[in-house]
Amino acid sequence: MKRIQIGLLGCGTVGTGVAKLLIENKDLLTARVGADLNLKWVADIDIETDRGIQFPEGVLTTDAQKLLTDPDVDMVIEMIGGDGIAKDFMLQAINNGKHIVTANKALLAAHGNELFAAAARNGVDLAFEASVGGCMPIIKSVRESLVANHIKSMTGILNGTCNYILSKIEDEGISFQEALAEAQRQGYAETDPTLDVEGTDTAHKIAILAALAYGMEINLKDVYTEGISRITPLDIEFAGQFGYRIKLLAISKFQNQRVEARVHPTMMPFKNLLTSINGTVNAITVSGDAVDDILLYGRGAGMMPTASAVVSDIVDIARNILSGTVRRIPPLSYQRESIRKIPVLPMDDLVTHYYFRFAALDHPGVLSTISGILGKYNISLQSVHQKGRKTNGSVPLVMLTHRAQEVDVKRALAEISDLNVVSDEPVLIRIEDDGLD
Amino acid sequence: MKRIQIGLLGCGTVGTGVAKLLIENKDLLTARVGADLNLKWVADIDIETDRGIQFPEGVLTTDAQKLLTDPDVDMVIEMIGGDGIAKDFMLQAINNGKHIVTANKALLAAHGNELFAAAARNGVDLAFEASVGGCMPIIKSVRESLVANHIKSMTGILNGTCNYILSKIEDEGISFQEALAEAQRQGYAETDPTLDVEGTDTAHKIAILAALAYGMEINLKDVYTEGISRITPLDIEFAGQFGYRIKLLAISKFQNQRVEARVHPTMMPFKNLLTSINGTVNAITVSGDAVDDILLYGRGAGMMPTASAVVSDIVDIARNILSGTVRRIPPLSYQRESIRKIPVLPMDDLVTHYYFRFAALDHPGVLSTISGILGKYNISLQSVHQKGRKTNGSVPLVMLTHRAQEVDVKRALAEISDLNVVSDEPVLIRIEDDGLD
Repeated sequence: MKRIQIGLLGCGTVGTGVAKLLIENKDLLTARVGADLNLKWVADIDIETDRGIQFPEGVLTTDAQKLLTDPDVDMVIEMIGGDGIAKDFMLQAINNGKHIVTANKALLAAHGNELFAAAARNGVDLAFEASVGGCMPIIKSVRESLVANHIKSMTGILNGTCNYILSKIEDEGISFQEALAEAQRQGYAETDPTLDVEGTDTAHKIAILAALAYGMEINLKDVYTEGISRITPLDIEFAGQFGYRIKLLAISKFQNQRVEARVHPTMMPFKNLLTSINGTVNAITVSGDAVDDILLYGRGAGMMPTASAVVSDIVDIARNILSGTVRRIPPLSYQRESIRKIPVLPMDDLVTHYYFRFAALDHPGVLSTISGILGKYNISLQSVHQKGRKTNGSVPLVMLTHRAQEVDVKRALAEISDLNVVSDEPVLIRIEDDGLD
Repeated sequence: MKRIQIGLLGCGTVGTGVAKLLIENKDLLTARVGADLNLKWVADIDIETDRGIQFPEGVLTTDAQKLLTDPDVDMVIEMIGGDGIAKDFMLQAINNGKHIVTANKALLAAHGNELFAAAARNGVDLAFEASVGGCMPIIKSVRESLVANHIKSMTGILNGTCNYILSKIEDEGISFQEALAEAQRQGYAETDPTLDVEGTDTAHKIAILAALAYGMEINLKDVYTEGISRITPLDIEFAGQFGYRIKLLAISKFQNQRVEARVHPTMMPFKNLLTSINGTVNAITVSGDAVDDILLYGRGAGMMPTASAVVSDIVDIARNILSGTVRRIPPLSYQRESIRKIPVLPMDDLVTHYYFRFAALDHPGVLSTISGILGKYNISLQSVHQKGRKTNGSVPLVMLTHRAQEVDVKRALAEISDLNVVSDEPVLIRIEDDGLD
């Protein structure tokens, strides 16, 4: 039986899951692939900790060079993470003619164009299914299953930590800080949760998906990114009264030869299936001109779900090797000569619906002053709600707008926040609701 | 640029969609695939009807042999349907060394083992993504994305017609017959709706999926199949009171070296995402040992969604041809030598939860008689509900059971239906609820 030699670089949580699957599900993989997927090397700075796996003798090493330079190794599985040493090792492996499997969205979002170019030059495969959405097969679906579609939009819950925190705030009426602390206790959030809760991780993922969907270079810097740390139980409660739930969404659309790519808390109607996705899972809706909508749902993180996606990439590359081919599918979905720079819509040009909440003094004339300023900036209102509970002399004044332009909204809110009758910063949450005018 | 020559056999609804995509999205396909996917022949008995497509000169023919025998043709897209002439043409194409793409679940479920064997002998690819779930990429997901998983179960809504009818009965409180008539008016149900509403179409699909998931031969005859024609608004209403919705589910599980494969109306708790899937769409949950659960959702039928899946298969095969390989992935997910006959659990051996509804005379002692018979057959009850509305002197007596065995249930219900105090046939609906004892 043919043997494919695999080097695993980094044996943390996901790396351990990959090793487990390759060892414990070996018979299954052999029955499906028809070859022996052999874990030849596992390199990690820590080879003492018991990972609950019986590694064959001599597989573990602290020396990454052993696998990067071993001529027998067909592919390197980069499970180190981050954009430091992982990048150097990956480039070295590529230059040594080894195929790459990675789950490293931070690295791909920041340096993907360089890495994909290196892989093309060296004629190796670079697979990254696990970098977005854990085990839900979003990359394969966009690249292969939807190949005949012009992708029109993608809307996703791509960070389980944020989704858990938002579900928690809604279910228990607790603050963001309390929900975050609970997520940390449960192991769903890191000690430093910034990358997750500020939306950065989600931005990495939508930058990668937009490239695949539209045939554009990866462009992380133009993805608008806003996290969930300012979401309050009060806004979630109001959202519910309007038939909305708040989710941290990655939204990307292709319109008029420009791409929208943005990450922010978003109100969405209950009837949208994405609002039923609660807890640590991920889900995404993709719209294409032929399929209408498809939705995928699955665990977006965790040892075994992510490892499942990594091993699916290992198998894809193994099948290429076994059938004597390479780069059978372009990693970024389009042939290299068809990949363009497509401009990302500046956030100021965005046109959407908005929810505002002002802490306004309970005075006659306040509503007229505020709505006057909004009117001056061409922002017209669907509805206005003055809700009962007074705190520090002000009441929440909630407004839903018709379609408005972001730059106008920014200017109007700046002017309103300067008013004496408005305390606190105004709250702005964008609404994604096809049913609105 | 390389050219792949395609012959389309049958130009009905889906065939027309395939032609549309190949012609209208040609630039997109070229940018992604790097080759010209050329529609060389379109064979249909009717080449006069305007299909809204500008076919190139000389492409249309009434002579299937033109494309079956043309040595230039790389692949044949079988869009005739049914298991008559489609099978002969498919075998002829295979024997002529042509790759096959089909959406024909009826044919694959009944004669798949023979067809896949022929494809293996002749060294051609046989692709069938569109045969299950329309545009939702369930076949690729099971075969490729979940390749590292032992699949534990699959639970799916795989027939949009039935799902539309059930949603309609629930939303409007109308009868099955009225909902079916509406589905026919909307074009969601055929004039002869038997294949859909009696569950046969769903059985075809789960027979195919079970083979892929567990590495077994396709076994349609052992799939238990029960349709939705006896579902009433009353049972849907009662289901709602218990927190359940009724869906026509395809259920398959792998346990103790046996496979469950069954299609029947099923009560499922609202908290299961599948119960939120209403209307003509399809959805499926797949559980694997590494991924936990994934869910896919999409249009299960219709011209363009189904055509999207067909063209994804065309592209997969084109990529094999372009990279000089064939049968890169075994069509049935497992290497041929690993495919076994796995016994299907006889329905009598099924153990699950049940909902019963009896039309019982409102007499003292009736409940004790019925529950006595159930007890005799080891069927213990979770709850009993005597609901108010009397019709023809009887009231609905509703019971939910603990886990019970199907053979006991059958015997008990036969005995109960013979009682003088029970009019009408007892209603039995199986419950799928992990939360129950």
